[in-house]
Amino acid sequence: MSAQSPQPAKPVTACLVIIGNEILSGRTQDANLAYMAKKLNTVGVQLREARVIPDVVATIVATVNEVRTAFDYVFTTGGIGPTHDDITSACIAQAFGVKLVRHPDAQRILEDYYKPADRTPARMKMADVPEGATLVQNPVSRAPGFRIANVFVFAGVPRIMQAMLDNVAPTLKGGLPVISRAIASQVREGALAAGLEAIQNEFPDVDIGSYPSFEAGSYGTSIVLRATAKPRLDAATEKVIALKRGLGGLPVEQPVV
Amino acid sequence: MSAQSPQPAKPVTACLVIIGNEILSGRTQDANLAYMAKKLNTVGVQLREARVIPDVVATIVATVNEVRTAFDYVFTTGGIGPTHDDITSACIAQAFGVKLVRHPDAQRILEDYYKPADRTPARMKMADVPEGATLVQNPVSRAPGFRIANVFVFAGVPRIMQAMLDNVAPTLKGGLPVISRAIASQVREGALAAGLEAIQNEFPDVDIGSYPSFEAGSYGTSIVLRATAKPRLDAATEKVIALKRGLGGLPVEQPVV
Repeated sequence: MSAQSPQPAKPVTACLVIIGNEILSGRTQDANLAYMAKKLNTVGVQLREARVIPDVVATIVATVNEVRTAFDYVFTTGGIGPTHDDITSACIAQAFGVKLVRHPDAQRILEDYYKPADRTPARMKMADVPEGATLVQNPVSRAPGFRIANVFVFAGVPRIMQAMLDNVAPTLKGGLPVISRAIASQVREGALAAGLEAIQNEFPDVDIGSYPSFEAGSYGTSIVLRATAKPRLDAATEKVIALKRGLGGLPVEQPVV
Repeated sequence: MSAQSPQPAKPVTACLVIIGNEILSGRTQDANLAYMAKKLNTVGVQLREARVIPDVVATIVATVNEVRTAFDYVFTTGGIGPTHDDITSACIAQAFGVKLVRHPDAQRILEDYYKPADRTPARMKMADVPEGATLVQNPVSRAPGFRIANVFVFAGVPRIMQAMLDNVAPTLKGGLPVISRAIASQVREGALAAGLEAIQNEFPDVDIGSYPSFEAGSYGTSIVLRATAKPRLDAATEKVIALKRGLGGLPVEQPVV
């Protein structure tokens, strides 16, 4: 590692736990992982794992307890609505060994939103959170999410999840955001492999990924480079461009997210 | 449980391990989970968990070793190409404590596909599999996947993954496929919750999920019912339809996948 790139601080990591039979059955396509990965990166938190698990108490409790010690932050999506299959809040309380209690602010939010006749026990259940949790506001449909320790519990509906994450992102203690560049060309992976490996060895602080593409009947490769230090990212990227040119490719920079 | 619905045999379960930094960064949207869930269900195998993990040796090894004892089948996607970041095969060998060896049939497949000048060490690496593994054919780009014990190792490119899964699905020993029905209406979740819970309690062998929708500015709920016994599924579904009608909704059956 060069003098220009001091060893970065330990990365701040996160795990996403997607709770929902409807994702596992293939009926619904998850739309939260990509949004979360990108948003977290803007505040220097790296999404390092995601798990999709069913609406089963033992699985939710065990998963949350495993990942909340392994990652700096945990985010769950799904299962905080009013119906019988909305068991996430109770599971989080169980995982932390605390009681599920009615949160007075959450109760007030729901009472402001629902007419007295509509304040069914099922709906008011959405004001129950693990003891000690703090609320995460929901500007879309009001029923809040919550945070307890390093675990954030969000709704699964994408626009509610996104609003909740947008609310809490500025409060997270992140490290350096990862920046990235992507270079496409019609050179095939197998031809690039040896040269790419040499570049990766020269730049251990740059994560270099190679992704084959088969577009318009033609094989090609997209090389994605990621790092926290821009000079190192740019230096490695220039070497990838030169490698592709040397193999007869016409490298094109792609927009990255 | 009624006499018409004998306790079904223990479900046959699967876990999908999606290996790839590009999914975790949000750059690429996974397109394999839904296909796999539906295809596995046709042969009576239930996808019960999915994990998205990075291209990190220790994580891949630990994850595979955890899930291969917890589920009947494990499927991995990604990381079996020719480049330096394609480390899945070596990680699976390490997880099983066996050597990575050149498979003679895989070598022959690659030699048939690549001209001598194109048989780079990087490409021929795609013929290396854990000792004892059997090949899974790849009709798209030839480099095979493989199976070792209950773990199937597939490519991440969706059309290759799908072809590999289609090849192996008939060989899996599954149980009864899950069948499902879905009923939509403009009744909100909170209004349905108490009645739904009663139906769920009456039909413990039917999995009843409630999913809120916000379409065309209007709130509604989609109820998805799943079971292996069709008479029980239909009986529970009729009760959901009656519940929604009783609450003033106009229930509509939705196509299910």
